[in-house]
Amino acid sequence: MKNYQTLIHSWIHDNKVIGIELLQNLVRKRSVQTNEYEAQQVIINHLKKLDLEIDEWEVAGEVFNHPYFCSTRKDFLKSPNIVAVKRGSGNGRSIILNGHIDVVPEGDLSQWTDDPYSGKIENGRMYGRGTTDMKGGTVSLLLAIQALKELGIELNGDVIFQSVIEEESGGAGTLETIIRGYKADAAIIPEPTNMKIFPKQQGSMWFRLTIKGRSAHGGTRYEGVSAIEKSLPVIQAIQTLEKIRNARIVDPLYQNTPIPIPINLGVIKGGDWPSSVADEVTIEGRIGVAPDEEMAHAQEELKQCLQDLESVDPWIKEHPIGIDWFGARWVPGTIDEEHPLMGILQTKFSEVKHTKPTIEASPWGTDGGLLEKLGGIPVIVFGPGTTQTAHFPNEYIELERMFEVAEIIALTLIDWCGVKEQ
Amino acid sequence: MKNYQTLIHSWIHDNKVIGIELLQNLVRKRSVQTNEYEAQQVIINHLKKLDLEIDEWEVAGEVFNHPYFCSTRKDFLKSPNIVAVKRGSGNGRSIILNGHIDVVPEGDLSQWTDDPYSGKIENGRMYGRGTTDMKGGTVSLLLAIQALKELGIELNGDVIFQSVIEEESGGAGTLETIIRGYKADAAIIPEPTNMKIFPKQQGSMWFRLTIKGRSAHGGTRYEGVSAIEKSLPVIQAIQTLEKIRNARIVDPLYQNTPIPIPINLGVIKGGDWPSSVADEVTIEGRIGVAPDEEMAHAQEELKQCLQDLESVDPWIKEHPIGIDWFGARWVPGTIDEEHPLMGILQTKFSEVKHTKPTIEASPWGTDGGLLEKLGGIPVIVFGPGTTQTAHFPNEYIELERMFEVAEIIALTLIDWCGVKEQ
Repeated sequence: MKNYQTLIHSWIHDNKVIGIELLQNLVRKRSVQTNEYEAQQVIINHLKKLDLEIDEWEVAGEVFNHPYFCSTRKDFLKSPNIVAVKRGSGNGRSIILNGHIDVVPEGDLSQWTDDPYSGKIENGRMYGRGTTDMKGGTVSLLLAIQALKELGIELNGDVIFQSVIEEESGGAGTLETIIRGYKADAAIIPEPTNMKIFPKQQGSMWFRLTIKGRSAHGGTRYEGVSAIEKSLPVIQAIQTLEKIRNARIVDPLYQNTPIPIPINLGVIKGGDWPSSVADEVTIEGRIGVAPDEEMAHAQEELKQCLQDLESVDPWIKEHPIGIDWFGARWVPGTIDEEHPLMGILQTKFSEVKHTKPTIEASPWGTDGGLLEKLGGIPVIVFGPGTTQTAHFPNEYIELERMFEVAEIIALTLIDWCGVKEQ
Repeated sequence: MKNYQTLIHSWIHDNKVIGIELLQNLVRKRSVQTNEYEAQQVIINHLKKLDLEIDEWEVAGEVFNHPYFCSTRKDFLKSPNIVAVKRGSGNGRSIILNGHIDVVPEGDLSQWTDDPYSGKIENGRMYGRGTTDMKGGTVSLLLAIQALKELGIELNGDVIFQSVIEEESGGAGTLETIIRGYKADAAIIPEPTNMKIFPKQQGSMWFRLTIKGRSAHGGTRYEGVSAIEKSLPVIQAIQTLEKIRNARIVDPLYQNTPIPIPINLGVIKGGDWPSSVADEVTIEGRIGVAPDEEMAHAQEELKQCLQDLESVDPWIKEHPIGIDWFGARWVPGTIDEEHPLMGILQTKFSEVKHTKPTIEASPWGTDGGLLEKLGGIPVIVFGPGTTQTAHFPNEYIELERMFEVAEIIALTLIDWCGVKEQ
């Protein structure tokens, strides 16, 4: 057996500029929802150099009626999905390598030091929306595939690369790859895990609560009912529910996580005049779903917690808190910790990093839940970016992590898919 | 002494159509801030029929530097102020009759049954923004003046009618009448008291609190600090402060008022993404100021209450709650309950209504605070509208109350200003 590690390490070391250039080209395309086309063309142009069978198409048809479909879009025109297959020589295990091309909006520009789409490099970091979540991870995948090709290493199993749309908004892109028939024996998604290995993925859902009050002049506020005041017991009830739900999580993969499945109240909005009583408050949030929990169970618990307020507050009894499950939703996922891909990935991590990897459960959802729950494909999430900068101003990635992950994945592919005897 | 009551009652009864037509014309002009011109021309055209000395001018000059000036406007072009004087024959007490022409915006149109500027009449009520606050009160004043004129009743003291701008936004219109030299021995402001007599007026101020957090992904919310969670102790501290401040109010005029000087938290806003930790919340509110309290004292108490949180919450200690005293401000005011105008008004009320008036302290501020504190003019607030519909959708006034107030004020003018012997 050749010393694949040395070969791959050298190739990636010698070709860092390919990865940097590719990431920069991807980051410079502002691939927010509905605007993914140009970034996907950067992917296509790169794939053409790698001798893959390329499938580029616009999501349409039956996906809209699928029970797992979650999107506010009415069409996906000019938002192509891409799958590119490197056929193995046969008798090997196949693998899906999945990355999403969509990025969340840049938000308040004044909080960015530079143009959010600059791809500026400083102190070994590349800055820009999508560097960490997750164009950097996608570049790791493509470098791994290219390294194998350039080194003439032919695998037995198929490698199915995917660059999907809509991960940030509910997963319609990955859902469509499954409907279109793409399956494999396992999958890796290089979302920003900071090089931790996540065999379990938390699910999550967004919700919007509507708390009713009754308007009045602020000077006679006792004639009204303040929806802002009525929000306090609602927030406190949700804080209690979060404690109850998390007390149940005994999985050791969560032992270092202060709150394994948080309920985050992210947006609050109510009232429209300082001296009027607010007649409505809306609170938008995100509830984490345990890897082994049904989405419907989490929904039911939140609903029950709000209903319980009705027995202590007559106003809320008459004006029940509204719940709307709007926006995005990520299905949880899990892979057996004894699954052979887990073993291979940990070994390769240790070979490259000379230390043991951290195994944890993810604090957020990915498209992996769909691959597992619907596609029956075991998924590991493992990537070079970090949660700390994802979705935030001045998002960046440590380029060295991107190269390390490329190396680990290339070595993992060799062991998982098998190598054709020369 | 003639039976003035019978005369005036008959005249107003026979001329209700004048009042209805005038109110409808006023309501149909949308006199929100900066848009007062057309409604003021309706006033001017009516005043011309009453043989008054009309002074119409645009507020400008030294008012901008006055310590009581409170407005975000840079000029008052096309927003005229009006004062019209009916000179008495001499040796009588003078009176200011003050109404504001500005109305608050109509807000969410979908909450109105009809066009907010329709002036539609149904079941004895006229509907529309400004009917109750306070164009109806202004019509009462003008009907009273017209009744005296048409009946040939000449007063000894001057009657100074004012139709001012900017009451809803800090009182620059009334402030300017004082600077311009208009004074009198007393004043009546027919704001919507529901025909209660208010010898004391609450002051009020708006404030904006800024509560800081630290952003993070909702899935790892423990890495951030939620400004929404940090708002809870702030709201609770303000609820406690409201209790403390109101426990001190022992004035019997407030005995039927559940919360004499409320602190209303009217607007809350924070965060911008359901699955991110909110890094800032702003709360806008209105603090009531007791009739005998200094504005600065109320400010100091709120400031202290927020500072006290710093000793129990290290995060708040490092990130103190911001307070901004923005927007509008109304100075409190008070008239001696033994003041002769109080006696006259109560007597005339009883003559017209055959019952005793309710004497209370106002739950909101008016321009009366400026007249009293700056102009040294004792003020009574007494008018036909109601707080319940002021500032709200489907605002209306009971037209009969408008005519009754006109009658009571006409009779009060006769007694207060004195009548020239024929």
